[in-house]
Amino acid sequence: MTILITGGTVVSPTGASAVEVLIDGERIAALLEPGSSAAESLAGNADQVIDAAGRYVIPGGVDGHTHMEMPFGGTTASDTFETGTRAAAWGGTTTIVDFIVHRAGEPLLDGIGAWHDKADGRCAIDYGFHQIVSAVDSDVLKGMDALMNEGVTSFKLFMGYPGVFYSDDGQILRAMQTASDSGALIMMHAENGIAIDVLVEQALARGETAPGYHGTTRPWETEAEATYRAIMLARIAHAPLYVVHMSAKQAVANLAEARRAGWNVFGETCPQYLYLSLEEHLFADGFDGAKYVCSTPLRARAEGHQDELWRYLRTDDLSVVSTDHCPFCLKEQKELGIGNFSKIPNGIGSVEHRMDLIYQGVVDGHISLPRWVELCSTTPARLFGMYPRKGILAPGSDADVVIYDPAGRTRISVETHHMQLDYSAYEGTEIAGHVDTVISRGQVIVDAGRYLGRAGHGRFVKRGLPDCLV
Amino acid sequence: MTILITGGTVVSPTGASAVEVLIDGERIAALLEPGSSAAESLAGNADQVIDAAGRYVIPGGVDGHTHMEMPFGGTTASDTFETGTRAAAWGGTTTIVDFIVHRAGEPLLDGIGAWHDKADGRCAIDYGFHQIVSAVDSDVLKGMDALMNEGVTSFKLFMGYPGVFYSDDGQILRAMQTASDSGALIMMHAENGIAIDVLVEQALARGETAPGYHGTTRPWETEAEATYRAIMLARIAHAPLYVVHMSAKQAVANLAEARRAGWNVFGETCPQYLYLSLEEHLFADGFDGAKYVCSTPLRARAEGHQDELWRYLRTDDLSVVSTDHCPFCLKEQKELGIGNFSKIPNGIGSVEHRMDLIYQGVVDGHISLPRWVELCSTTPARLFGMYPRKGILAPGSDADVVIYDPAGRTRISVETHHMQLDYSAYEGTEIAGHVDTVISRGQVIVDAGRYLGRAGHGRFVKRGLPDCLV
Amino acid sequence: MTILITGGTVVSPTGASAVEVLIDGERIAALLEPGSSAAESLAGNADQVIDAAGRYVIPGGVDGHTHMEMPFGGTTASDTFETGTRAAAWGGTTTIVDFIVHRAGEPLLDGIGAWHDKADGRCAIDYGFHQIVSAVDSDVLKGMDALMNEGVTSFKLFMGYPGVFYSDDGQILRAMQTASDSGALIMMHAENGIAIDVLVEQALARGETAPGYHGTTRPWETEAEATYRAIMLARIAHAPLYVVHMSAKQAVANLAEARRAGWNVFGETCPQYLYLSLEEHLFADGFDGAKYVCSTPLRARAEGHQDELWRYLRTDDLSVVSTDHCPFCLKEQKELGIGNFSKIPNGIGSVEHRMDLIYQGVVDGHISLPRWVELCSTTPARLFGMYPRKGILAPGSDADVVIYDPAGRTRISVETHHMQLDYSAYEGTEIAGHVDTVISRGQVIVDAGRYLGRAGHGRFVKRGLPDCLV
Amino acid sequence: MTILITGGTVVSPTGASAVEVLIDGERIAALLEPGSSAAESLAGNADQVIDAAGRYVIPGGVDGHTHMEMPFGGTTASDTFETGTRAAAWGGTTTIVDFIVHRAGEPLLDGIGAWHDKADGRCAIDYGFHQIVSAVDSDVLKGMDALMNEGVTSFKLFMGYPGVFYSDDGQILRAMQTASDSGALIMMHAENGIAIDVLVEQALARGETAPGYHGTTRPWETEAEATYRAIMLARIAHAPLYVVHMSAKQAVANLAEARRAGWNVFGETCPQYLYLSLEEHLFADGFDGAKYVCSTPLRARAEGHQDELWRYLRTDDLSVVSTDHCPFCLKEQKELGIGNFSKIPNGIGSVEHRMDLIYQGVVDGHISLPRWVELCSTTPARLFGMYPRKGILAPGSDADVVIYDPAGRTRISVETHHMQLDYSAYEGTEIAGHVDTVISRGQVIVDAGRYLGRAGHGRFVKRGLPDCLV
Repeated sequence: MTILITGGTVVSPTGASAVEVLIDGERIAALLEPGSSAAESLAGNADQVIDAAGRYVIPGGVDGHTHMEMPFGGTTASDTFETGTRAAAWGGTTTIVDFIVHRAGEPLLDGIGAWHDKADGRCAIDYGFHQIVSAVDSDVLKGMDALMNEGVTSFKLFMGYPGVFYSDDGQILRAMQTASDSGALIMMHAENGIAIDVLVEQALARGETAPGYHGTTRPWETEAEATYRAIMLARIAHAPLYVVHMSAKQAVANLAEARRAGWNVFGETCPQYLYLSLEEHLFADGFDGAKYVCSTPLRARAEGHQDELWRYLRTDDLSVVSTDHCPFCLKEQKELGIGNFSKIPNGIGSVEHRMDLIYQGVVDGHISLPRWVELCSTTPARLFGMYPRKGILAPGSDADVVIYDPAGRTRISVETHHMQLDYSAYEGTEIAGHVDTVISRGQVIVDAGRYLGRAGHGRFVKRGLPDCLV
Repeated sequence: MTILITGGTVVSPTGASAVEVLIDGERIAALLEPGSSAAESLAGNADQVIDAAGRYVIPGGVDGHTHMEMPFGGTTASDTFETGTRAAAWGGTTTIVDFIVHRAGEPLLDGIGAWHDKADGRCAIDYGFHQIVSAVDSDVLKGMDALMNEGVTSFKLFMGYPGVFYSDDGQILRAMQTASDSGALIMMHAENGIAIDVLVEQALARGETAPGYHGTTRPWETEAEATYRAIMLARIAHAPLYVVHMSAKQAVANLAEARRAGWNVFGETCPQYLYLSLEEHLFADGFDGAKYVCSTPLRARAEGHQDELWRYLRTDDLSVVSTDHCPFCLKEQKELGIGNFSKIPNGIGSVEHRMDLIYQGVVDGHISLPRWVELCSTTPARLFGMYPRKGILAPGSDADVVIYDPAGRTRISVETHHMQLDYSAYEGTEIAGHVDTVISRGQVIVDAGRYLGRAGHGRFVKRGLPDCLV
Repeated sequence: MTILITGGTVVSPTGASAVEVLIDGERIAALLEPGSSAAESLAGNADQVIDAAGRYVIPGGVDGHTHMEMPFGGTTASDTFETGTRAAAWGGTTTIVDFIVHRAGEPLLDGIGAWHDKADGRCAIDYGFHQIVSAVDSDVLKGMDALMNEGVTSFKLFMGYPGVFYSDDGQILRAMQTASDSGALIMMHAENGIAIDVLVEQALARGETAPGYHGTTRPWETEAEATYRAIMLARIAHAPLYVVHMSAKQAVANLAEARRAGWNVFGETCPQYLYLSLEEHLFADGFDGAKYVCSTPLRARAEGHQDELWRYLRTDDLSVVSTDHCPFCLKEQKELGIGNFSKIPNGIGSVEHRMDLIYQGVVDGHISLPRWVELCSTTPARLFGMYPRKGILAPGSDADVVIYDPAGRTRISVETHHMQLDYSAYEGTEIAGHVDTVISRGQVIVDAGRYLGRAGHGRFVKRGLPDCLV
Repeated sequence: MTILITGGTVVSPTGASAVEVLIDGERIAALLEPGSSAAESLAGNADQVIDAAGRYVIPGGVDGHTHMEMPFGGTTASDTFETGTRAAAWGGTTTIVDFIVHRAGEPLLDGIGAWHDKADGRCAIDYGFHQIVSAVDSDVLKGMDALMNEGVTSFKLFMGYPGVFYSDDGQILRAMQTASDSGALIMMHAENGIAIDVLVEQALARGETAPGYHGTTRPWETEAEATYRAIMLARIAHAPLYVVHMSAKQAVANLAEARRAGWNVFGETCPQYLYLSLEEHLFADGFDGAKYVCSTPLRARAEGHQDELWRYLRTDDLSVVSTDHCPFCLKEQKELGIGNFSKIPNGIGSVEHRMDLIYQGVVDGHISLPRWVELCSTTPARLFGMYPRKGILAPGSDADVVIYDPAGRTRISVETHHMQLDYSAYEGTEIAGHVDTVISRGQVIVDAGRYLGRAGHGRFVKRGLPDCLV
């Protein structure tokens, strides 16, 4: 089966031009100059021709941070691998990397089998796994090396959540040393959980129980501090570092300083930190703020974090936009925290909207068109060891392609979204651009408003070594 | 005429992979997955097949800063467009952008015709023109707009050389405002020439006449200051800025700070600033230092400039490596300054060696392989309005291709180089990598140690608007 | 004649404590522990005892930047040495340093005689002179050295006002080298006047003639740039540098960076930059903004300059608060610029209010009480070569003493002020603190709301070398 | 008993001038202008006149960081309060502040009585106590408040030494909140002990047992990190912070950044970090490096820490020089760590040499003469709540006075020093300046090479609230 995409503008991380894309089976077989003899000689044999005139042809989105069916705080994230990857597909994302959970004291290798079981045969798009690592000990370190052979080449540590996922600085240092030897990438949840727990206890004691206090008890200093600490530990270990879901401008400033010094450190942010805020959303009336409880928390717009994050995306001090998709329904899930914000399950669902929300940044002048592709596809593929299979339109790459209409519009609402989630953090927002067609490994899985994919089409991606010279 | 390049590893600014390149006439017609049906069906029709096994296939080098036959200090740069572009071709550079000279008081538009006359019919590779602009007045501003239509879309101003090329800050501001309106790119020679002239006069009065004093009379402060001033003026004018031939780490630090603030400012350095130094070269015994007289000057290795510049190349605070190729022979040219360093014509010739010298930085671990291509080809093409025609291997792009052997070695010497220059600034150096084959607009012009090109093959490139969102 | 001040709290730059001050003739003879035998044995002989209970006893203010009777823009500053120094006395300032004017091309030494003539026999308080230096040439450099012997040990250069006071960077560099040799202090008006003149011309051409455009045509970049340039030139010359009337936070940030690197650079700000703003005052309705036209201009409060300047006063990145007292009446003087802001004489009069306005900063928590004394008295005395004669309460120092009531209130108004000026920039403001008693060289010149001084009491202070290790 | 010091130059934090000092009993009664009537009338009554001609008269040194008889690592610091304070007196220090030890789990208030017992009746000079606080809990927090009434107004926390003194970040935060409420000053040992323990274990496992590895297992990142973390926690708590014994330039850079932002954070360094280095001393041959084992460790001279620390002393980014005097003899004490550097008791003895070693910095041009007094006397007195009783020569202050001969020379050697320590870290060094006479609360305790003091002269100083607006 061959598909020829004609008439479109292919966007890469360095520019945009008129190029035809020939898909043969699961891979891209050729990129062709429109009107060239080569293009014409191959066009005749194409089984299907898609006319992308007036539209962008881009590599499918790579969302490097999702939590499908994640057990957390006594409940489980509401999207399964089936519903979550389908929603991702609707939004132009063709690869996710999800997190295998590990809790302090459990054997590290227990998780991967369970995660394969959850995902196998259910996914609409391709997927890989990061491994969460808690309370590092020597068994855990051995497990990390074993997982490298399973295509799990990145490990997430937590400076927060004491007693659950938390590792102390010595444990973190050992894990980083192991990663330095194996070429793995350490991902860090950088919040000072020990200090935060004190602030939470004090706030609750003062009767500050509403969702907004989730934000005030995680002040920017706790993120800036942990980020700086993670960078220093990574330097001692000569290990690269990837800081997840950054929301505080001061934390990113610390990262930017290290990047300017030439160190291999990388930052990720998420759409919620670019669009939503402490004052407007987390402190929304009544219990409504619970919708926006996630960690790191939304930051105060009055302090300018959102604008600074956009700027850091532009200057490549932030390298990746992921979603940290971790949806919990308002009913029965977020409601666990009525009367006590610390019981609200942490997470926002947006795996479906990332490509559109960041394209809006192009329209708003925050970033360039090539940068959109770089942030949402190319760089995550490189950093997570999937390039050039994913993240770029190139001969030999998986045929994960999105045809994107810059003149289209997308309205976000719980009424229309495909995530298994009873609210939308962006309810009623209408933004520029529209995902028209999504191709996953050569299969058209979304087109013209119809879902054409199937559970089980998506395959596990055994990832290689991260490219940390991005 | 079609050429198929097989077996090689194509390097782009985001990575490297096995891809076949099909050239049809002057352009790249297709990029193909090796072994795909598409590749096989097209292979049969290729007029020529080049086996690039074990080698890199990269976009031809773009040298954005050359001065062929440039009149300066009472003499003329020793390479003609014929000899200089031929030497460039030998070194894997397939496009240069040369500078049309303008002197204070002359009509701005006088230059372009003369430059076309010098270049037309003589070049081995394609070429474009920047326009030097001196002592800006309203006629000059009008001329700048007129030149945009001629494909000259970048303008170089001088904060140095009072009485020759110098513009004062008001003139610079006006030129920047004009560029801001038209989309042109302002290039800046950022040295405080007014202060330098005092230091030169004082040094000569003290009897400090040897070539080394060229360096001490242009201390880093004069470059850091002028760079900062240019950035501030560009901000007032809302104009992008490109600072040429940066050599002082403090100057680049100022640029880096502005880039981190999200401003459209760009820096260029040159191989001489990465490899050569004040102590070792400019203060070489006797008159030998004259070989290394260029402005900005070589900097002290003891102060660490060279290492910092490599680091800034890595962190993308410096965006481009050009040569500032401006060769003057030792005999009769550099010798004009015996007994008075200020009479030594400024310039070093290295148009032939840039690709190799920067590839050595990959071998030495300073930069990654994709970054090499980005610095030497892709980014200059983007910034100078030639992308995607130049600077990238993509369908529809000019078929400017270099086959580069990473296992080869290149020895630099006046005995073997092709520049019209009676010495080499890198005499006797042997470095990693070798330019095996060079293709310019579909013509093999260098192969297997033979020059197969011809004067006049190279054509003028009418450049479009700079892409300042790089 | 001896005076004993008892019961008060003496404030020094390092703290406050109960100390008695014994004045004998023109000098402080002793500081005494209250109740000690020494104090008691001397108390009996005192001719006069002043009870300062509940009040601060501080060294008289040193205003290092005034322009009495200054010719500017076709008119002359409205305060004479007589009226201006009397107003200063009312406000607790007991020493001023005024500027001898020099214009490009005039013999440098012409000014000092004229200035002595204007001041001699007319001043209420002591005074020194700085020398303005324009368009430096070798005669000017010789003159600078000659003036050192006259007690004029600081020289002000201008990067603004081309054609009037302006020196180019080479001239500035030579003056700095001269100062480096002699130990003189270079003071700098740091604005890029060449660029500003272009912006002014363009604004007027657009019909932007109101006073507010005085501010928009002097954007912060013109101050930040010039400040950075002055610092770099001072470094080349190994000369200390004092930047006058700083108003842009970015300019001070450049200075702070240099200070942190250990360079001898100092910054001065003025009350107007701490309290007044571009939006509220310079863009006041109609021609009212003319009252606030001074250079550097008032800055936008929305950009936070005022708060940052207070912070920089606290962190000692700004070392001195002077007034740049240069009053022009609204009638017939400021009015010269109706219809053309560039004709409005530059200057604000506040020599009378500095001590009170900065004490308000203590009350508001911006600075500590000792820092108030340091900023307004001690540091200017040190930097301008008058310490310990001025700026400190110490045995042997001139008996310049202010008794300040922290519980008092001061209301500022044209109705009540003593400056020869037909408006007040702070009209109607009431602030904390009150100057109760002022003693100049042992004479009580202000007390209990009465002026007891006389024209001619004040003497010229032949200043020594600046102490640039402050 | 009255003493009049004539002929000398009194040095204060703002300058130096000829002043006579009259001591009456334990306090300074008067400062007098030489030759004034007041001076002459009082001179006659003086019981003793000291001629200080040609010499400096300065406030006695305040050493804010000593550990007399400190139990540590199974042994006890070799100086008792008797020997240690006598040595301090010899070196011109008239006040020390020593640390009451507290270990995790012990009642906080147990220590003060023991410390009073150790010091009472034994000290040559006045002394105060800081309280060490380990493993903070609610009883500890109550104890902190109780100690405020005992004149113990500063509390030292440890981010290092897990299991001994270590507090986690939540404990630190709570202690800071308590200090913020009471006005106490938090002092911080800022090293990441958790990470260091891992590095130590790994080094020992590799057979790296020599003293030098004490330094390599405490890399600068562990100090820079902990310093930044302490600053962030202090910000959350709105508490001032004093970081002890800083040795890494990067740690001080973090502090400097916070100071520039206007936060109340202060840094202390010690003579060993200014003069000694990792390469030369800690890695000295054989076991000799044990002499120089202290924490934070000596840093590499090749990295430039020593020069940067001097610069930071100059720029007031470091506010205080203390000694961290904690002597252990080579015999039987340091020797505990033969074959295992981690068993070497941490500490260097230099309480006797601080004033001389820092005066050498004046001679070498690092700091000014007034800055010497400020760093060694005035600022520690202010920060530790003893000003103006200590740290300044002012009427009413304790008569702690040093007469210092700038023309003298001091040779440091175990042969001649007065500390109870069997080696000198500065063996054989001869430096500029000499402590001639030391007066403590009106008693001459050192003069002309003789010790005239007595154990028990020194009294406990009940300290007031720290002045954190220094």
